[in-house]
Amino acid sequence: MKLSGFPEWLPAQRMVELSVLDTLREVFELSGFASIETRAVEPVSELLRKGETSKEIYLLRRLQEDPMAAAQDPKQLGLHFDLTVPFARYVLGNFSELPFPFRRYQIQKVWRGERPQDGRFREFTQADIDIVGDGQLAFHHEIEVALVMVEALSRLPIPRATLLVNNRKILQGVCEGVGVSDIEVALRNLDKLEKIGSSAVLEAMLAEGIEREGAEKLLDLAQISAADASFVPQVKALGIQNQTLDKGLEELAAVVDACNRVVPGSVRAQLSIARGLDYYTGTVYETVLEGHEDLGSICSGGRYDALASDGKRTFPGVGLSIGVSRLVSRLITQNLVTASRAVPSCVAIAVVDEASRAQSEEIARTLRSRNIPCEVVANAAKFGKQIRYAERRGIPYVWFPDSGEVKDIRSGNQVKADPSTWMPPKEDLEVQILSQN
Amino acid sequence: MKLSGFPEWLPAQRMVELSVLDTLREVFELSGFASIETRAVEPVSELLRKGETSKEIYLLRRLQEDPMAAAQDPKQLGLHFDLTVPFARYVLGNFSELPFPFRRYQIQKVWRGERPQDGRFREFTQADIDIVGDGQLAFHHEIEVALVMVEALSRLPIPRATLLVNNRKILQGVCEGVGVSDIEVALRNLDKLEKIGSSAVLEAMLAEGIEREGAEKLLDLAQISAADASFVPQVKALGIQNQTLDKGLEELAAVVDACNRVVPGSVRAQLSIARGLDYYTGTVYETVLEGHEDLGSICSGGRYDALASDGKRTFPGVGLSIGVSRLVSRLITQNLVTASRAVPSCVAIAVVDEASRAQSEEIARTLRSRNIPCEVVANAAKFGKQIRYAERRGIPYVWFPDSGEVKDIRSGNQVKADPSTWMPPKEDLEVQILSQN
Repeated sequence: MKLSGFPEWLPAQRMVELSVLDTLREVFELSGFASIETRAVEPVSELLRKGETSKEIYLLRRLQEDPMAAAQDPKQLGLHFDLTVPFARYVLGNFSELPFPFRRYQIQKVWRGERPQDGRFREFTQADIDIVGDGQLAFHHEIEVALVMVEALSRLPIPRATLLVNNRKILQGVCEGVGVSDIEVALRNLDKLEKIGSSAVLEAMLAEGIEREGAEKLLDLAQISAADASFVPQVKALGIQNQTLDKGLEELAAVVDACNRVVPGSVRAQLSIARGLDYYTGTVYETVLEGHEDLGSICSGGRYDALASDGKRTFPGVGLSIGVSRLVSRLITQNLVTASRAVPSCVAIAVVDEASRAQSEEIARTLRSRNIPCEVVANAAKFGKQIRYAERRGIPYVWFPDSGEVKDIRSGNQVKADPSTWMPPKEDLEVQILSQN
Repeated sequence: MKLSGFPEWLPAQRMVELSVLDTLREVFELSGFASIETRAVEPVSELLRKGETSKEIYLLRRLQEDPMAAAQDPKQLGLHFDLTVPFARYVLGNFSELPFPFRRYQIQKVWRGERPQDGRFREFTQADIDIVGDGQLAFHHEIEVALVMVEALSRLPIPRATLLVNNRKILQGVCEGVGVSDIEVALRNLDKLEKIGSSAVLEAMLAEGIEREGAEKLLDLAQISAADASFVPQVKALGIQNQTLDKGLEELAAVVDACNRVVPGSVRAQLSIARGLDYYTGTVYETVLEGHEDLGSICSGGRYDALASDGKRTFPGVGLSIGVSRLVSRLITQNLVTASRAVPSCVAIAVVDEASRAQSEEIARTLRSRNIPCEVVANAAKFGKQIRYAERRGIPYVWFPDSGEVKDIRSGNQVKADPSTWMPPKEDLEVQILSQN
């Protein structure tokens, strides 16, 4: 019944996921980001626009449609594989209605037909924030989005997360300065550094026609990493003169300094970060989780000078995307985070006998009117059985309508109580998300 | 760029939708329902299990997969067209981990390849609640789910909603009592009553082999409607003797009485309600919105004795499903409900000059730490321009870091304020959802 690559959670696990999603939404909204959702589908011509036919996307066909005719239709629909392509289309389609610079967050499922055995999901949730300008977008937003994600990650029940940042202008400036003309080849190879090591990357670059001197400089650059602006003199020591490089160093130092001034230790400059995608033009971000480096980056993105363009207008942007499912799956499957109960109910109202069920329901309604989640026990069995009904669900309190008492079934403590005034402690009222960190 | 049948909302419209979803979730959780999500896809063999090949479902194929081979694969995946089929599969796959009776809510997108010109969506959000038992499920849950939905609908910014209820045992008992052997034919035709009228339904039933006497009795039954248990003597007056009928009358009277005792006028017995689906066995529900009867039922469901079964175990259930997109689309497109602003921010922090942007950001951080959503203005333009930045977004307050004052830009009122103590009125803090009702 399970399908590999399509994760599903039990109710208590889903509570962990919901709590993560709620926290992200709260931070995004506090920072002024507006929610949008886009449809799950785009015409296949849009999805493959950047020529990325290597992406394993899912195409759609109506049951009654001819399979071959559908496959040849350029308007055939496919499921989106990220939230950036649909957001770009949304911005172009609605620009006259949006306030620029426009801050949006988007938390939705995406689908990729990749092999699930790599630990990758075929269906997963992403949480994206982007700030998009009309024609221009000030650099300070590259600091802003980093700080929003630092704040969001710091509130999650996860191990310490560090944003690793770089700037495409540095990579571009170094390439220009050392005479590497095909920057895309350089970036693509640098991106493999952590996976295959520097000597293999060197060989690959040489094989692709990059001169040895340039390739070695790029690898020297990629070794540089710092928790503060001390990377600047290290890069300068490589002896490359280039204005784009200088601009990149200035911007990267500004991002690292500003973030660490607000949240010390939250951001590192790591000059090996390349990001495969070709549309980044400024700051690029990845995020590692302490002790879970094997997960890869849990939050990535960057600055792009043209998120969207219709020929007349261009919309630059900067954004970051959290891979929520990958993160939550790790929290759940390694029991790093658990929920204090499997149901929202804080109280189970016992039922004396079926004839008096309405009395128990009345107590439940009173509690709910005061925002106390509760449920009435399903069967008027012996009270011992009704207490076990609560225990099985992790519900901490049982209310007895006959005696007008409420029992904390963990301590056994039982007291007289009035449903119109009784209030459980806050840590019992809401489901607690308990972290092992 | 727009695709017919795939609705998307602007940020302020999305706020209306989010507020509806938040309200539903709150009521469901207060009532003890646990959230689950299921994957968007099921094997096509599961989706077509009930032989409903007339459903226009979407099938999936990976880009690199051969179209004909995919079409012939019984394991081919399709997008779910409701949340009941996947929930039944989830219950069967996880029953040993679930606490029965299990209350779950599920708010997700579903997809149908129907013609969008009927005002139907191809992608839409449903919000479902179900209570499922292991082997048995007490009748009182049929009252419980109705009351949860009555509460949820009463909290939404919508016109008055009325639940119309019937009981399949009544329809079955009447059919048995008057000698109609093919109850499915009777139900299917009764379901068209509102659309085509009683004489056309009579003709259709006669054409399908139902005796005139039985058909006329069924139509007499379908005329009966009442806000209380007064329908019982009206049905009895039809003179049909049948135990299943009597049981159905008793249950329907219990639902109507119990709901109207708690929320007067919330529920009507309407004996024409048939619901097309063949798996209902007890109470069936539809919901009409006053003044928007053309929308059809916005919240429907019923009791089924076998939501799921694996041959050994059977899981009876009762549930209701709200068609959120259809409802929200009506609210938005007719301007019945609007949001007080297009962004979450309550305050825009002005920027004196770019050199002092950090000071404005510090004020923003202090406000956010006190749960006041805010954003720093993008450009250090003249204050008049910065006020218009806020105006365009509907942000009610502008904070001036130089004078340490905050201005209500609607009234022009400006006061000294400290970001660590200032608090806007509650109706400004959160986006208001304003109803025209």
